[in-house]
Amino acid sequence: MVQKIILDTDPGIDDAMAILFAEAHPGISLEAITCVYGNATIDNATANALFLKQKYALKADVVKGADRPLVRPPVGPTTIVHGETGFGDFHAPSVKDLQADPRPAYQYIIDSVRAQPGEITLVAVGPLTNLALALQAAPDIVDLVREVVVMGGAFGVNGHRGNVTPYAEANIHDDPHAADLVFTARWPVTIIGLDVTQQSFFTREYLDELRDAAGEPGEFIWTISRFYLKFYSQKLGLEGCHVHDPSAIAYVIDKSLFTLRDGPVRVVTDGPAEGHTIQKFDGRQYPHDEWHDKPSQRIGVAVEDKRLLALYRQTLVDYGKR
Amino acid sequence: MVQKIILDTDPGIDDAMAILFAEAHPGISLEAITCVYGNATIDNATANALFLKQKYALKADVVKGADRPLVRPPVGPTTIVHGETGFGDFHAPSVKDLQADPRPAYQYIIDSVRAQPGEITLVAVGPLTNLALALQAAPDIVDLVREVVVMGGAFGVNGHRGNVTPYAEANIHDDPHAADLVFTARWPVTIIGLDVTQQSFFTREYLDELRDAAGEPGEFIWTISRFYLKFYSQKLGLEGCHVHDPSAIAYVIDKSLFTLRDGPVRVVTDGPAEGHTIQKFDGRQYPHDEWHDKPSQRIGVAVEDKRLLALYRQTLVDYGKR
Repeated sequence: MVQKIILDTDPGIDDAMAILFAEAHPGISLEAITCVYGNATIDNATANALFLKQKYALKADVVKGADRPLVRPPVGPTTIVHGETGFGDFHAPSVKDLQADPRPAYQYIIDSVRAQPGEITLVAVGPLTNLALALQAAPDIVDLVREVVVMGGAFGVNGHRGNVTPYAEANIHDDPHAADLVFTARWPVTIIGLDVTQQSFFTREYLDELRDAAGEPGEFIWTISRFYLKFYSQKLGLEGCHVHDPSAIAYVIDKSLFTLRDGPVRVVTDGPAEGHTIQKFDGRQYPHDEWHDKPSQRIGVAVEDKRLLALYRQTLVDYGKR
Repeated sequence: MVQKIILDTDPGIDDAMAILFAEAHPGISLEAITCVYGNATIDNATANALFLKQKYALKADVVKGADRPLVRPPVGPTTIVHGETGFGDFHAPSVKDLQADPRPAYQYIIDSVRAQPGEITLVAVGPLTNLALALQAAPDIVDLVREVVVMGGAFGVNGHRGNVTPYAEANIHDDPHAADLVFTARWPVTIIGLDVTQQSFFTREYLDELRDAAGEPGEFIWTISRFYLKFYSQKLGLEGCHVHDPSAIAYVIDKSLFTLRDGPVRVVTDGPAEGHTIQKFDGRQYPHDEWHDKPSQRIGVAVEDKRLLALYRQTLVDYGKR
């Protein structure tokens, strides 16, 4: 069965890796790319998505979304990780003949979900502002979405705690209020956080092999990831990069790659720990408990990383041959 | 060397266990009992401390402190754990001839610390309101206090997370703003949280033996702990109780009982995770980091529980023979 997804994303280097992964896999139908600020500004993120649409003849609509978080002051694009315009040292030429859908992303999401009840999986790999705006404008969509898959957060499993603060992951830190809305809504959410994305690693050699074996898409991923790898090497002392956004796509393709843990999830929205994600996963009753009346969601706590890396490679290699 | 301590406390059943432990041990000079709301109202807590002062002829001054937290609305006394007036089913008769020191607790702390620079250890086993008020009124005390030892918080070590919410311990949850002030002040703080206090356990048999071997103090501890044990049995399914407040005294007596972990500590002050304590214990630099300019403190991450239980028993048995 082919799964229809709307990919909500802030391209972004690993976002491009995820977009091509979704496009490449025969089990996924990439219906739309809804853009959001985050790794890049909303204008650059949308331009990058349109560039990919043209370059790879994607059928997916490209839609422009939110340019800032719901409540908190904007953090600003993560240029230190993703470069000035989002694709590292590669600056996507502007696309002439293609335009973004005229609707804002949240409205596009509402319309699509209502038009195809039970069929759309929302995969969000950036700040969750578009999804939160959609929820606020149309609470009925919680019953119409097939599933929500989020790359974001860090729950302290396997010692993974945060990447932009000691206890917060970038996507959630960018808009913690939106994240708390999305995680506490009564739709099924699976959160693929640093606990698992930092357990999978694209080495330099892996990306070199991808360049050689996966045709033009492999070369493109290799090109934009040069800047990303420089950041990892210089700032983190790692020769390669964690597999963040593609892990959310991997989950959609093959759920058996991940071990999940059930329980309601809340987000700290203010103070030093803003963006910290917390799951209650025991059944104990407490005198005060702002998790107990919230729906149980799922977080990733383990991943079969070798199988995930092989899936990504094979999917891109097959795609490169088309 | 005898260590002079001011015990800031909300008696409370395990508070009484800690007060008698401090009074009983020859290595500690219990200079004062400064009271705070928490397990009981401030009036009941102060009355309970005065009762103990008379009953055991304590030299320690008894001082009345704060009746409510700095910012948050009061949670109210923990009657479900400590009974209506703080000592379970035992209601302390009011004391006629003794009175509390006329000063508020925070002023008493300031005066004592200034009068004996470098000599006083503050041991706080209730909400940290009195210490925070002292810090606010007299920031100079950070250089005059010998050490601060706090029973409170839960850092997720050994799986211990919270007791009044899924992620907050009662003392910190009662006044998270005060706790964040105390933990980020430039004085040396050691935090003995649930991570270690829930690793030591007074079984029913242990308390029965204490009653039989530790004279009148042993009998008193046994008497007031009946209610406490009923709570543990009915609500937690445990036959006995964790060693909360006495663990802070044990740390003062013998630091080698505990393994500590260094790093700045912040407290979540608002939202569902209010009262959640978070230590940064890696040296990594983050783009946003509200721990990095705060002083490193110490939290307990392991305890030699058998040695702690033996120390408590022997100290009380010796005291009972006096």
